[in-house]
Amino acid sequence: MEDSDEAELTQFLRDCPAADSSRKVEAPESRREPGHPLGSGARVPPDEGSDERDARILSRSRPADFQQHIAAPPPPSPNRPRSPWGQLDPYDSSEDDKEYVGFATLPNQVHRKSVKKGFDFTLMVAGESGLGKSTLVNSLFLTDMYRDRKLLNAEERITQTVEITKHVVDIEEKGVKLRLTIVDTPGFGDAVNNTECWKPVADYIDQQFEQYFRDESGLNRKNIQDNRVHCCIYFISPFGHGLRPLDVEFMRALHQRVNIVPVLAKADTLTPGAEVERMKNKIREEIDHYGIRIYQFPECDSDEDEEFKLQDQALKESIPFAVIGSNTVVEAKGRRVRGRLYPWGIVEVENPSHCDFVKLRTMLVRTHMQDLKDVTRETHYENYRTQCIQSMTRMVVKAGRGAGLGLD
Amino acid sequence: MEDSDEAELTQFLRDCPAADSSRKVEAPESRREPGHPLGSGARVPPDEGSDERDARILSRSRPADFQQHIAAPPPPSPNRPRSPWGQLDPYDSSEDDKEYVGFATLPNQVHRKSVKKGFDFTLMVAGESGLGKSTLVNSLFLTDMYRDRKLLNAEERITQTVEITKHVVDIEEKGVKLRLTIVDTPGFGDAVNNTECWKPVADYIDQQFEQYFRDESGLNRKNIQDNRVHCCIYFISPFGHGLRPLDVEFMRALHQRVNIVPVLAKADTLTPGAEVERMKNKIREEIDHYGIRIYQFPECDSDEDEEFKLQDQALKESIPFAVIGSNTVVEAKGRRVRGRLYPWGIVEVENPSHCDFVKLRTMLVRTHMQDLKDVTRETHYENYRTQCIQSMTRMVVKAGRGAGLGLD
Repeated sequence: MEDSDEAELTQFLRDCPAADSSRKVEAPESRREPGHPLGSGARVPPDEGSDERDARILSRSRPADFQQHIAAPPPPSPNRPRSPWGQLDPYDSSEDDKEYVGFATLPNQVHRKSVKKGFDFTLMVAGESGLGKSTLVNSLFLTDMYRDRKLLNAEERITQTVEITKHVVDIEEKGVKLRLTIVDTPGFGDAVNNTECWKPVADYIDQQFEQYFRDESGLNRKNIQDNRVHCCIYFISPFGHGLRPLDVEFMRALHQRVNIVPVLAKADTLTPGAEVERMKNKIREEIDHYGIRIYQFPECDSDEDEEFKLQDQALKESIPFAVIGSNTVVEAKGRRVRGRLYPWGIVEVENPSHCDFVKLRTMLVRTHMQDLKDVTRETHYENYRTQCIQSMTRMVVKAGRGAGLGLD
Repeated sequence: MEDSDEAELTQFLRDCPAADSSRKVEAPESRREPGHPLGSGARVPPDEGSDERDARILSRSRPADFQQHIAAPPPPSPNRPRSPWGQLDPYDSSEDDKEYVGFATLPNQVHRKSVKKGFDFTLMVAGESGLGKSTLVNSLFLTDMYRDRKLLNAEERITQTVEITKHVVDIEEKGVKLRLTIVDTPGFGDAVNNTECWKPVADYIDQQFEQYFRDESGLNRKNIQDNRVHCCIYFISPFGHGLRPLDVEFMRALHQRVNIVPVLAKADTLTPGAEVERMKNKIREEIDHYGIRIYQFPECDSDEDEEFKLQDQALKESIPFAVIGSNTVVEAKGRRVRGRLYPWGIVEVENPSHCDFVKLRTMLVRTHMQDLKDVTRETHYENYRTQCIQSMTRMVVKAGRGAGLGLD
């Protein structure tokens, strides 16, 4: 009988009402009435002291051999099943196994699945040519994405239209696989007349959204290739006295389509203190003034410690990141650093007093890569999709009107 | 100039071709030709011994103060930025920061986002009434889901149709939030004629799919409530000499809609060795014979250790889990266990030699909850969606034919 449990001595229901979600051990708020139609067995009134009572007192009618089994010292607690989460198991002991349901392992399950599946990330770089886009990408990802790149001479570059190229590389670190796609906009800004030179780039981003929209609306959605652009690093020239008109036009054309992260390129041409700060302030003012919406860092978790919050704040305040790229390692007094060797000294890419390269990489890879993907999926793609459906609806209505169906 | 790096001494490109994804430090496969149109600066031929050379040798033209800076002992490595991943950071040191890009933190980013968002899980219980469904659910989730349940008398139960009820509870463990929904099918099997009694249950599952299909096809997809049923625990009577015809009919009607996990209910009426095993074998044979596709455990990861693989195997071989539910804690010789106190002894719910309760909970919560959700999303829902679109297409074609549009 399902309810005969109630006849037993101690009731130990753990009570978890929706309003108070902490796990507490409480007596149930309502006990079933003794006159219950399905109730069976002798009912014992609740006895608060019963916990201390020895179960043997209640087992007089047990057969002798069983009595012996009960009277014997309790068998050692059964071996705890081996956890697939190893050291990361949120539950420490077999006592925890009894006290808890176990769903705090859900993040571990998600973690493991994500590792198994692998990650992908699509990064676009844009901005004038010659600002070190390729070098910076190679520096960021410690790889040579552009081994086969053919640089064009001036004549070729004049006739060249903005041609968008894709470089894909599979990399692995500490057992985590990443398919990295770099979308490059090489000839950008090289032409004499750059009117609407952002258009092919905007079209490219939209095409990836469109393809994804088709795929996710299709019948078979397994193995959809997701080529949506998760981030666009926009390179700003250090010689521009702030933003150039082309920069403004470009970023405004793209800011609703993609997460823009502006960087101040080739920062080794500006002195790190005064000149870089002045330039950054100017750029931030202009970004604000022209209503350009660059990628917004999410608010720091309130449960982070103060030191980390300050660091997160510093990261936000460094935008646009002043960067220097280099794929060469130079040596100074036995210390090997990635940097650029000038006659007047070594510029260290990873030295925070030289530039913001480490900050950019920290943000882009270590802390916010997943957020960039989420914002792309939840905001930029959803915006595209909404507009797409709305314009499709308008077309259908218009066609209906034309056919006299009176759909409006 | 972007390419002046090449004029420097040591090139240290890390080479990551798609075919070989291990991170290795290699010389680049192809160097740019010296006659490169954009090349600049003095070109130094690659020198394998250059790593050992002191940078000072190359810095003769530096101003004196800078020279001094270089000659001084190298400044201590800049403080490592504080990682938001704390102890879980896959990178150990600031040395690691230089050696690696850092994307091995992606699973941490996913982990954190999942905790922030919280989890949901929808569990259905089905099977004859009186098999301890409610008790088992309460035992599994250490909660009282059914505080307000009103049990009906025999007369009421005859006239009662299968009414599906939903219980929602928000619980939290170790900082992880779970919104648990229990979908109950109470009167099931109580009627004298149980023909198609599975139908309301199948309809319920389909309705949740339909609602989700509408929502994910709509304009605004933020805050979609996902009520899809992730798992159905199907209770098999211990008195049935295997599956009853109703069990077969029910599971076959549902197995393409939901992950079925069969359990052998009230297993304290069978002796744990011989009787339970005989019954389990019978049930497994019949599941096989009638082509019932219950939830399939995914293959164990090949990188798991042997002990864990064996345990995973044991879990799979325990299906149908023989279970006993109890929400009461009884005490024997100072040891408090959840169990059922009979005159002939105490049945311990969490003792693996008494029943498979711990195995069921381990599978359902600790190891496979996320997989149950993924299979629901990727397989059962996708099947529903495909059928839905296909029948919609057929209707459109038919309507077109009727209107003489000749769409076929």
